[in-house]
Amino acid sequence: MKKIYWIALILGTMQLVTAQTTDQYSYNLMPWPKEIHQGAGNYVIKEDFTLFIQNVSSQRLHNGATRFLRRLSGRTGVFFEEGFPQKVKSAPSFIIEVEREGSLQNFDDESYSLQITDKTIYLKSITDIGALRGLETLLQLVTPSANYFYIPALNIEDAPRFPWRGLMIDVARHYQPLDVLKRNLDAMAAVKLNVFHWHLTDDQGFRLESKRHPKLHELGSDGEYYTHEEIKEIIQYAAERGIRVIPEIDVPGHASALLTAYPELGSKKDTYTIERYAGIFDPTLDPTNEKTYQILEDVFTEIAELFPDPYVHIGGDENEGKHWDENPEIMAFKKKHGFQSNHDLQTHFNLRLQKILEKLGKRLVGWEEIMTPQMPTTALIHSWRGVEEGLQPGESLAKAAQKGHYSILSTGYYIDRMHDVNNHYLVDPLPKSFSLTKEEQKKILGGEVTMWGELVTPLTIDSRIWPRTAAIAERFWSPATVTDIQHMRKRLTMISFRLEELGLTHLKNQNVILRNISNGYQTDALQKLTKVCQPLQKYSRNKGGTEYKSYSPFTLFADACTTDAPDAYQFSQLVDTFITEAEVAQKPLESMFHQWIANHEELLVLKGETPLVSELLELSSALKNVSAFFLKILKQEGVSKADANDFASLMNIIKEPRADVEIVTYDAFMKLFEHLKKSEL
Amino acid sequence: MKKIYWIALILGTMQLVTAQTTDQYSYNLMPWPKEIHQGAGNYVIKEDFTLFIQNVSSQRLHNGATRFLRRLSGRTGVFFEEGFPQKVKSAPSFIIEVEREGSLQNFDDESYSLQITDKTIYLKSITDIGALRGLETLLQLVTPSANYFYIPALNIEDAPRFPWRGLMIDVARHYQPLDVLKRNLDAMAAVKLNVFHWHLTDDQGFRLESKRHPKLHELGSDGEYYTHEEIKEIIQYAAERGIRVIPEIDVPGHASALLTAYPELGSKKDTYTIERYAGIFDPTLDPTNEKTYQILEDVFTEIAELFPDPYVHIGGDENEGKHWDENPEIMAFKKKHGFQSNHDLQTHFNLRLQKILEKLGKRLVGWEEIMTPQMPTTALIHSWRGVEEGLQPGESLAKAAQKGHYSILSTGYYIDRMHDVNNHYLVDPLPKSFSLTKEEQKKILGGEVTMWGELVTPLTIDSRIWPRTAAIAERFWSPATVTDIQHMRKRLTMISFRLEELGLTHLKNQNVILRNISNGYQTDALQKLTKVCQPLQKYSRNKGGTEYKSYSPFTLFADACTTDAPDAYQFSQLVDTFITEAEVAQKPLESMFHQWIANHEELLVLKGETPLVSELLELSSALKNVSAFFLKILKQEGVSKADANDFASLMNIIKEPRADVEIVTYDAFMKLFEHLKKSEL
Repeated sequence: MKKIYWIALILGTMQLVTAQTTDQYSYNLMPWPKEIHQGAGNYVIKEDFTLFIQNVSSQRLHNGATRFLRRLSGRTGVFFEEGFPQKVKSAPSFIIEVEREGSLQNFDDESYSLQITDKTIYLKSITDIGALRGLETLLQLVTPSANYFYIPALNIEDAPRFPWRGLMIDVARHYQPLDVLKRNLDAMAAVKLNVFHWHLTDDQGFRLESKRHPKLHELGSDGEYYTHEEIKEIIQYAAERGIRVIPEIDVPGHASALLTAYPELGSKKDTYTIERYAGIFDPTLDPTNEKTYQILEDVFTEIAELFPDPYVHIGGDENEGKHWDENPEIMAFKKKHGFQSNHDLQTHFNLRLQKILEKLGKRLVGWEEIMTPQMPTTALIHSWRGVEEGLQPGESLAKAAQKGHYSILSTGYYIDRMHDVNNHYLVDPLPKSFSLTKEEQKKILGGEVTMWGELVTPLTIDSRIWPRTAAIAERFWSPATVTDIQHMRKRLTMISFRLEELGLTHLKNQNVILRNISNGYQTDALQKLTKVCQPLQKYSRNKGGTEYKSYSPFTLFADACTTDAPDAYQFSQLVDTFITEAEVAQKPLESMFHQWIANHEELLVLKGETPLVSELLELSSALKNVSAFFLKILKQEGVSKADANDFASLMNIIKEPRADVEIVTYDAFMKLFEHLKKSEL
Repeated sequence: MKKIYWIALILGTMQLVTAQTTDQYSYNLMPWPKEIHQGAGNYVIKEDFTLFIQNVSSQRLHNGATRFLRRLSGRTGVFFEEGFPQKVKSAPSFIIEVEREGSLQNFDDESYSLQITDKTIYLKSITDIGALRGLETLLQLVTPSANYFYIPALNIEDAPRFPWRGLMIDVARHYQPLDVLKRNLDAMAAVKLNVFHWHLTDDQGFRLESKRHPKLHELGSDGEYYTHEEIKEIIQYAAERGIRVIPEIDVPGHASALLTAYPELGSKKDTYTIERYAGIFDPTLDPTNEKTYQILEDVFTEIAELFPDPYVHIGGDENEGKHWDENPEIMAFKKKHGFQSNHDLQTHFNLRLQKILEKLGKRLVGWEEIMTPQMPTTALIHSWRGVEEGLQPGESLAKAAQKGHYSILSTGYYIDRMHDVNNHYLVDPLPKSFSLTKEEQKKILGGEVTMWGELVTPLTIDSRIWPRTAAIAERFWSPATVTDIQHMRKRLTMISFRLEELGLTHLKNQNVILRNISNGYQTDALQKLTKVCQPLQKYSRNKGGTEYKSYSPFTLFADACTTDAPDAYQFSQLVDTFITEAEVAQKPLESMFHQWIANHEELLVLKGETPLVSELLELSSALKNVSAFFLKILKQEGVSKADANDFASLMNIIKEPRADVEIVTYDAFMKLFEHLKKSEL
């Protein structure tokens, strides 16, 4: 009876907001829900706001609802009389109705529905995890007006498209303390991600305490590792937010740190040291040595005891097998077993690990190289290679599904490559181009954003992960039809700043870096300059991995810059407008040029004060001169041949990376120039 | 021989910079060292910078030196070839020579000397702790020039004036996660504080895990407590930085949280709940109940196992004994034992605890109320009461010393009262006015800054502690003659921003709060307004403890404001100048008035956008109108009687607290007005 009323409300009085018509709605929701039905009026947040949880006694939900109250109060400044969920139901403002506790595994129910009127809020879900997702949606709906904050009346029906929505953080190349992980787990929950893939080991560090083989963390981590207590704490923290934790021990390659502790497991008889550079290195475990398996079995046993998730990631990527080729005993082993290639030998290694994990009740995840005919289909395939590796994006993903493996996609979600958000947003784990059966499609579980750690420290990591990961999270959660870039960017700006309330530092740490650069002076001019600059893309910062060591400074101007430089984006939009409607865009364009000229003058205050600004002044000066050049044309003051030559050399300066950043307006400058040349110059 | 050379260098070629002549030197050192001898030239920081530690194999110093290298590299952007102290001495740039490892107790040696030439840096100390202090001095000396960073050539001889230089953090009223404590320990080390006093329990929370009586933390903390592992981690983290950790279990008052778990220990037979308000409350342990001592003995036994420091703080403050008076059995007990007063009864209680602690090998510290004739002189007296409690500041401190107790001062260092830094800076634990013998003087160990937690959360606590605590740290460390306020303020600005490199959030979190207020809009105008506002002082914010609950929002404009509002300070300086030299100050004054007028216009953009700005607009509008009034006078445009009346009512608005802040320029406005009235109006 009650259910019928509920459905009637949704279908009867509400207006459906589909993905196609979202643009007109100002809700700053991300990920965009499956269905929104707009209502009339607003629910106003007042001091007497109360919350009651019906049916289920989930500690997780009780804690989540308490955090919800804190954030709602912090956001609105409203002094709630009650700071905790009600113990006894007594005319609550907000009722959460849940059927059962959810479990953290593939395909458990995360759906929820919200029914907001001007009088009450109802949140209904099958599981407490679904309710947590709904609470995040509700917080995104909170809106200020002149005299109060409100939540607009509406109904939402929501459920995820994919069950595996992950973020990988590489804590091996740079250690990330617990508070960094915790705040990122909070942010993940805020955008409904549900898998934290913890890349715990690599050439640069073995960051997992091993009680059975303490040399691993003692010699392999510079003292920067996670104790068992800390690992439990992170798992608990994640579980409280409906997030699974998948550990990764990357083997047999990426093993320098492990081999620093146990050189006898190496394929080359040598001593090893923790790697300080970035790149692909030769140290590789010896797959013919029984002790290798003994120690790995011990490590995986400890992991199985610590991590409740059924999946364990064994890495398996980028092993070039150089040390295998150089070791006659390994070569003899290969021959004896009839292995045609190092890949076959690695398969032998992987299958040994697969058996160990099976014995421990765990399923194996590996980067796509592990997918060989002998690998049981219980193994989950993690697709990462793309065009640069000579493959179609997602090729291995579809192949894995066809073979009967579960699989997840990371190609296209490598946020450390520093591409703009648009670039990642449209990559779909299950594009229409895949011709898969319904059954095969279900094998594609979702995807993972990968935050590789070569160039990030606790100071900067948030600004690399966020806000772009929120847009990718939408790809994993929302209907495939939600693809409007402009709408996404508008919402992303708001979501980005909202993440700050969870302690995220992606916005606030920019000024910390700039204050250091300016030695405590004003940072306005430097900040203005970041708005047209971005860090070098596609690994051309730290080319070949030899410029930066792990202990190099990551406090530079490039570290204060991010992708999606806002002024550059705005400028290129204006140039496009100018080309079709010059009169609309001319004034705003001129204003931007004037700003860049003025900014250079302001920046000159720092000249001679610190060595950290000299390259930046070159950038800023070029920007100023280009601006002056364009102003001259726009104001029809006449441009000489010499001016045009100057422009060419200025553009060479602008094209050239400096201080590990590039001015992103280059293409738009060239476009504007070509257009002006054609039309009047 | 070497030693003679060293001394000769100091005395021969260097120029002594004493406290009296410091103003002319631009070193941004804090605390100011005992002796500085200026040299010639600079040591330039380059990529080949290396560091070697001589004589002692202290892991603490190795780690400290490694952190030094990271900070030096991060600060300067120089890519060091070597990221760790040398393993073998090989022409190092920087040699640290240490005699032995220090121990964390009163009076162990923390002195160091620095000898910096244009070619090398020598740091010498008796203990590794002294060397850590010297490393902080060295980092404060790093200076940028046009093409490089350098450390000026000089010699420093330094040692602390007091051995106990503390910061107390109350984590009971608001829980502070580990990362908050860690970054504050880093900041403490940066300004050479060496005692972290951890106020772990109070009415609002029992934050210490008890393995013997888990109900204490389970029922007394809302789940926000420190596990034993976490406590060890903090103790270790502090020890690595040469900082002792003193735990406090505040009894017999301030016990609501404890009694929530064990109501049977209460003096009133009742149930108890965790207190949500602030203030002094009635719940008090029953000193006549043996079970009280059993449970406390168990808790102190766990503490003794966890905390290596010889001292344990038992609180003992603010027990008004209301529930004692109401309990006939307790009254009978008093009578039977011949106790004249509740204070006598509390002494009985304290002495029982003293014996428990003695048995555990610990010494008792207590707030000054514990000082009674029967209390053994091994107990350390913590002086906190002052004029408002009808006492001379430090009265109990001197008395304690005369009685033979060690004692420490907190009167005058209550930073939660939100006084300006000047206010605290000149309070001396051992003023000349004390007529104590040499022996008695030595009993005064130093002092502690107290950060009470009623109105602070992880978002704001740093901005309450810093930078003022750096100035108080100078009081504890530097010679008593270092008292120049202007010089202190100049250095403090630089030290404050330098603390950011340790992750302190006192600067960067302001904009987080303002962005929330403005719903993601620009925060410039709000920020400008913070520069003349300060949070209400002397506990008049949250008067009587009944406005804010522990879960109330601390994300308000008042939370974005701090003491020492910079524009207000500058304005009052300008008014003083104007009164003596009008022509010097007139233009700058006019400029400030114009800025305030313009700022109000800018702030008006937010009008109607959010309820969080309405009171702020009232403040800003008053500031604008006062500015217009003064401009009229300064420009001699003639002021009518009506204008003067308007001014009076405007000043009434300005005087009135709004949004829990006050405009700090009130006095300066009045002063300027009176001056102008006299001279021309």
